[in-house]
Amino acid sequence: MAPAIRRLRVAVSGLGRMGARHANHFLHRTPKAELVAAFTPAENELAWAKENLEPWGVKIYTNFEDMLKHEGLEAVCVATVTTVHAEQTIKAIEAGKHVLCEKPLSTKLDVVHQVLETAKRNPHVKVMCGFSRRFDASYVNAYNLTLKGDIGRPTILRSQTCDKYDPSGFFVAYAEFSGGIFVDCNIHDIDLALWYFSAETKGKTLPRVKSVMAVGVTALEPDLAKHGDVDNGVGVVEFHSGQIAYFYSSRMNAPGQHDMTEIIGTKGKLTVNANPTTGLLESHISSGIHRDIPQNYYERFEQAFVEEASQFTDAVLDNREVPIDLESSMEAVKIGVALQDSLRNGKKIFFDQQGNKIDENRSKL
Amino acid sequence: MAPAIRRLRVAVSGLGRMGARHANHFLHRTPKAELVAAFTPAENELAWAKENLEPWGVKIYTNFEDMLKHEGLEAVCVATVTTVHAEQTIKAIEAGKHVLCEKPLSTKLDVVHQVLETAKRNPHVKVMCGFSRRFDASYVNAYNLTLKGDIGRPTILRSQTCDKYDPSGFFVAYAEFSGGIFVDCNIHDIDLALWYFSAETKGKTLPRVKSVMAVGVTALEPDLAKHGDVDNGVGVVEFHSGQIAYFYSSRMNAPGQHDMTEIIGTKGKLTVNANPTTGLLESHISSGIHRDIPQNYYERFEQAFVEEASQFTDAVLDNREVPIDLESSMEAVKIGVALQDSLRNGKKIFFDQQGNKIDENRSKL
Amino acid sequence: MAPAIRRLRVAVSGLGRMGARHANHFLHRTPKAELVAAFTPAENELAWAKENLEPWGVKIYTNFEDMLKHEGLEAVCVATVTTVHAEQTIKAIEAGKHVLCEKPLSTKLDVVHQVLETAKRNPHVKVMCGFSRRFDASYVNAYNLTLKGDIGRPTILRSQTCDKYDPSGFFVAYAEFSGGIFVDCNIHDIDLALWYFSAETKGKTLPRVKSVMAVGVTALEPDLAKHGDVDNGVGVVEFHSGQIAYFYSSRMNAPGQHDMTEIIGTKGKLTVNANPTTGLLESHISSGIHRDIPQNYYERFEQAFVEEASQFTDAVLDNREVPIDLESSMEAVKIGVALQDSLRNGKKIFFDQQGNKIDENRSKL
Amino acid sequence: MAPAIRRLRVAVSGLGRMGARHANHFLHRTPKAELVAAFTPAENELAWAKENLEPWGVKIYTNFEDMLKHEGLEAVCVATVTTVHAEQTIKAIEAGKHVLCEKPLSTKLDVVHQVLETAKRNPHVKVMCGFSRRFDASYVNAYNLTLKGDIGRPTILRSQTCDKYDPSGFFVAYAEFSGGIFVDCNIHDIDLALWYFSAETKGKTLPRVKSVMAVGVTALEPDLAKHGDVDNGVGVVEFHSGQIAYFYSSRMNAPGQHDMTEIIGTKGKLTVNANPTTGLLESHISSGIHRDIPQNYYERFEQAFVEEASQFTDAVLDNREVPIDLESSMEAVKIGVALQDSLRNGKKIFFDQQGNKIDENRSKL
Repeated sequence: MAPAIRRLRVAVSGLGRMGARHANHFLHRTPKAELVAAFTPAENELAWAKENLEPWGVKIYTNFEDMLKHEGLEAVCVATVTTVHAEQTIKAIEAGKHVLCEKPLSTKLDVVHQVLETAKRNPHVKVMCGFSRRFDASYVNAYNLTLKGDIGRPTILRSQTCDKYDPSGFFVAYAEFSGGIFVDCNIHDIDLALWYFSAETKGKTLPRVKSVMAVGVTALEPDLAKHGDVDNGVGVVEFHSGQIAYFYSSRMNAPGQHDMTEIIGTKGKLTVNANPTTGLLESHISSGIHRDIPQNYYERFEQAFVEEASQFTDAVLDNREVPIDLESSMEAVKIGVALQDSLRNGKKIFFDQQGNKIDENRSKL
Repeated sequence: MAPAIRRLRVAVSGLGRMGARHANHFLHRTPKAELVAAFTPAENELAWAKENLEPWGVKIYTNFEDMLKHEGLEAVCVATVTTVHAEQTIKAIEAGKHVLCEKPLSTKLDVVHQVLETAKRNPHVKVMCGFSRRFDASYVNAYNLTLKGDIGRPTILRSQTCDKYDPSGFFVAYAEFSGGIFVDCNIHDIDLALWYFSAETKGKTLPRVKSVMAVGVTALEPDLAKHGDVDNGVGVVEFHSGQIAYFYSSRMNAPGQHDMTEIIGTKGKLTVNANPTTGLLESHISSGIHRDIPQNYYERFEQAFVEEASQFTDAVLDNREVPIDLESSMEAVKIGVALQDSLRNGKKIFFDQQGNKIDENRSKL
Repeated sequence: MAPAIRRLRVAVSGLGRMGARHANHFLHRTPKAELVAAFTPAENELAWAKENLEPWGVKIYTNFEDMLKHEGLEAVCVATVTTVHAEQTIKAIEAGKHVLCEKPLSTKLDVVHQVLETAKRNPHVKVMCGFSRRFDASYVNAYNLTLKGDIGRPTILRSQTCDKYDPSGFFVAYAEFSGGIFVDCNIHDIDLALWYFSAETKGKTLPRVKSVMAVGVTALEPDLAKHGDVDNGVGVVEFHSGQIAYFYSSRMNAPGQHDMTEIIGTKGKLTVNANPTTGLLESHISSGIHRDIPQNYYERFEQAFVEEASQFTDAVLDNREVPIDLESSMEAVKIGVALQDSLRNGKKIFFDQQGNKIDENRSKL
Repeated sequence: MAPAIRRLRVAVSGLGRMGARHANHFLHRTPKAELVAAFTPAENELAWAKENLEPWGVKIYTNFEDMLKHEGLEAVCVATVTTVHAEQTIKAIEAGKHVLCEKPLSTKLDVVHQVLETAKRNPHVKVMCGFSRRFDASYVNAYNLTLKGDIGRPTILRSQTCDKYDPSGFFVAYAEFSGGIFVDCNIHDIDLALWYFSAETKGKTLPRVKSVMAVGVTALEPDLAKHGDVDNGVGVVEFHSGQIAYFYSSRMNAPGQHDMTEIIGTKGKLTVNANPTTGLLESHISSGIHRDIPQNYYERFEQAFVEEASQFTDAVLDNREVPIDLESSMEAVKIGVALQDSLRNGKKIFFDQQGNKIDENRSKL
């Protein structure tokens, strides 16, 4: 029998490492979505698509605009390189397609602003930036406990994004376009701060940034300095709401990927991934007790990406709000960019209650 | 475009708690399989199927034989009550359908034997008993490390299956048909012993049981004694190969499901799930540090069941051996039944090298 | 000023590895005790004593009887080789000295019985067998939670004593006198079972053994078979009270010493040392996350031995009951010997309610 | 016999909570030390001393100068309120007594400087500030692994001091004299940064501070603002050596005391107390898996204090350098005070290579 179920017709733009995963998620792991098209301009990605997508009935495009015209297409997952995230998102919105865009929308605040404006002009179109951690079961549990009041008022948030060291030097070249470590890595942590700190208003009101300060070092890759970047960064963000988030990011974590977060409230603390592990296996051997940890963010967050695809799909099909507000995603970029600025100029940066930068330092207590 | 991919056409028999899950796995989470039919005689399961399966094009049957005749059907997943596992498996085999059958094939050894004989007479049909733990990533990692020799010769195996206490008394009534705690719960642990202990021959040769001994108590449910069963059992199995497995099963684990295994070799030990947890969240609150654990085996093994469906599907499509040998599954039932016998008659039971029971006790060292 | 405090005048007999530690504990870490004398017949131990004890005012003896006559001596800590534990304990009791004797009193049940009889004839003398785990903070916390009823009725106890593998073969020679693995290693686990299972009567009534069964293998040291011993043993003990203890002991634990215990009650479970570690340090390095564990029982239980010395001293000074009852220590030997017998003859052994062996197997449920 | 051993004759000044503990450590747990005198002006402490110290032959003084004249006195442990640490330390040094002083020497940098000058003028006298964590086994192990090069160059250090919330409001009043949370709590973390970051020179050269920045909130105790203090503080310290330390301190940790440290190097990371626990006990009960953590710093660091007393004693007796350099302790106060300043004035504070504050902000990369 032919299925009577209505499924969302989705295209994926970009079939690089993460794009290919998104394509697989929509194709095989999101029952209510149907992957109908995919776009890539890259030769090797095209070959992959012909082998892995085409046989399942997915139409492959080498031109983004053509793909947008695919008959019946309803939504696009933008997973290209960061530099074209915004452009494609805007085009898709203007073509009336719902958009799930990989983070960040852009490393430039004014560009993010354009996306936001475009989205506002097209209110029937749903646009979401894919902050995958918000779909991770442990983070969701932590959020629900926070909403329930188990930890009192969330006051301090510590969060880190630490990648396994990649000796190929890939991330040095990458730093030219990544926006820097605070925009590329800690953007997730910043998003989490906005999420948990706005829990007291059930997400209605974002906390307003009061100051940011960042420092960093190039411990293993001095060439990062050319791009105003570091391989280890520490940042601190104060909010006017009396809440503080502090972040660490690193490109040199030895055993693998270690992202972790503490949400510290007036009555308790929740930790997510304080004890990283790939599973439930431990080895007791002559050199001691050992366990492995995930080697990259996908090993850690695979299930979250699948859940993200599913929740985006459901929100569109049911015409409900998408789970992550665009304003919040813009605020995350704003804070990330400010941290990177602080790293580069060595200064603490202040903001007033309206979110405008203040030129002069001010006394605090 | 219509998919050009060849997918295995599967039916699920039985849509109770586990059957419905299998149906979902084949329908939504096994890309290379296509759920084409399902059978259930139960009113409430039928209603569920009409809502959740039929809209996806799955044909629902209330007669097992009719389902077997579904056009193009290639394989059946038997997930009915244990008492009809064997009967349906035999019918499906004789109809030329590949079978994935929930464990155990039967609680009666002679019935298991019939299944095995039927399978042997139909060598073109693939038959596998679903010991889900063999598809769990942590158990698989442990097996691969064992194969690699990381722990030397696997010599001792400790394994437990502990269910969260169910105050409804369900498992007392259930004990009438379950075959008893060693056949119902520890069958998984026994299967693991056979798996890891045969790693030295890469699975070619099963270790041969030498003796079994079991004891138990009815700590919370004295009525279990009516069925010759207990709510806490301890069993020890010696093999002629100089290997020992010891087991614990319980129906009264307070925080939830806690299955765990230690594979102890001459050079090291591997533990699976020594530290149960539902995820990566810990709460630091006034009463201490806390974490939750899975509430049932599906919370623990969901991904393993999905993997099981996938590997079964691949084995059939590629005409390869199924990952779990039927002989081994029969041996697991044999040992489980012997443990339950030992529990009931209070005696240690001995077997010779050919697997026959020995009447008299023998000296050991 | 001269101290006005009354301190117990103690002698230590035997200055081998453990004796030297006891001497140090009484000399430096038991404020209310005063180490006044020590005995050793061994040349190397004597040299150690002259360097480490004599300068602190401790009189060294090479004759046990002479030491017993040391002026003002009140108590003796017997820490010689196991084979003379009982003889010295009896002599000390008869000389009116309080005795703290290393476990076990003897590997022979009739000899233990003689100690008990001697103690009964000298009720003013306090005699305690040093089961050090009873003084470990974690075990004590577990006991107090059990007394409070946090886990309901303690029903199942699992306990293991696993030594780091010693490739010198020491324990093969040692097996000639150790009484075997169940008497030497699991005696501690047996003692714990008696302790926790009698918690429901606040220690007034010992549970009575109903059956014992043990099996084992010689995985690394086949020569152990000469002494009727193994390097890996599994034992199960049923009590007439509807409680079951099961034990594991090993001489081949790769990373170090791993003793652990689970006390499983009708409402919950307490684990002691499920996650062994030497401290609070973890290494995150390229091969994963690692931690070390204690290399021997003293690294694990050092503080418990100090506490044992202190509580023994206080009990004598305050004329209170010593914390461990001699009857219980005798029962532990009895069960250990029975397990070793079962290991050797391959049989399950039964006891009636009065503690007498039953010749024939009996039906159980 | 009278002991022939030479023991260090020590007095303790101050018998408050920590002073009483020091007295006990020198009296009962430091074999090579002899507690000969103690000083306290407080009535209740005097009563405690008469009951607990006098019977052991310790002479009690109510006048500090008198105590200094106690015949044969060689060393003083200063454990009075922070405000008189420096004064007593200076007097003791000038009287030719070796000094172990509780941290911090003072909350005022110029006062610390006076102590240092006094010590320099009396080079035969040994003076050490008691940073207890340096004597904790886990921290010591981490230091030794760092020295060995296991983690490459230590580059980032994260460290926190989190106290259990004390609803009595004690720490609000205490804030008047404590110097603030960065001087009172994070001083330990700062000391650890100096210790681990100087490991590359085997402690010969202290890293030089480049900038400090701190923020904080009064989440539970708004009255702290009166003293320019907070109950949650975050601070970041850059060093000219290309190393960064970042700190967190809190007065509201729900389950108890949680101090933890990460030493992050170019090749790996060491964590100390990432998983706080009081021992080796876990409870598996209906609400999940639970464990307790220490309730205060003494529960966490008791053994480290004992070790501190012992190493100080040995250094004096053997005429070796004390394990912690006074310059380093002064630097810790300097950084703590700067962090507290930054918290109060909201500014990032910069230092040149000579350690002098720089007025203007400077560009960084």
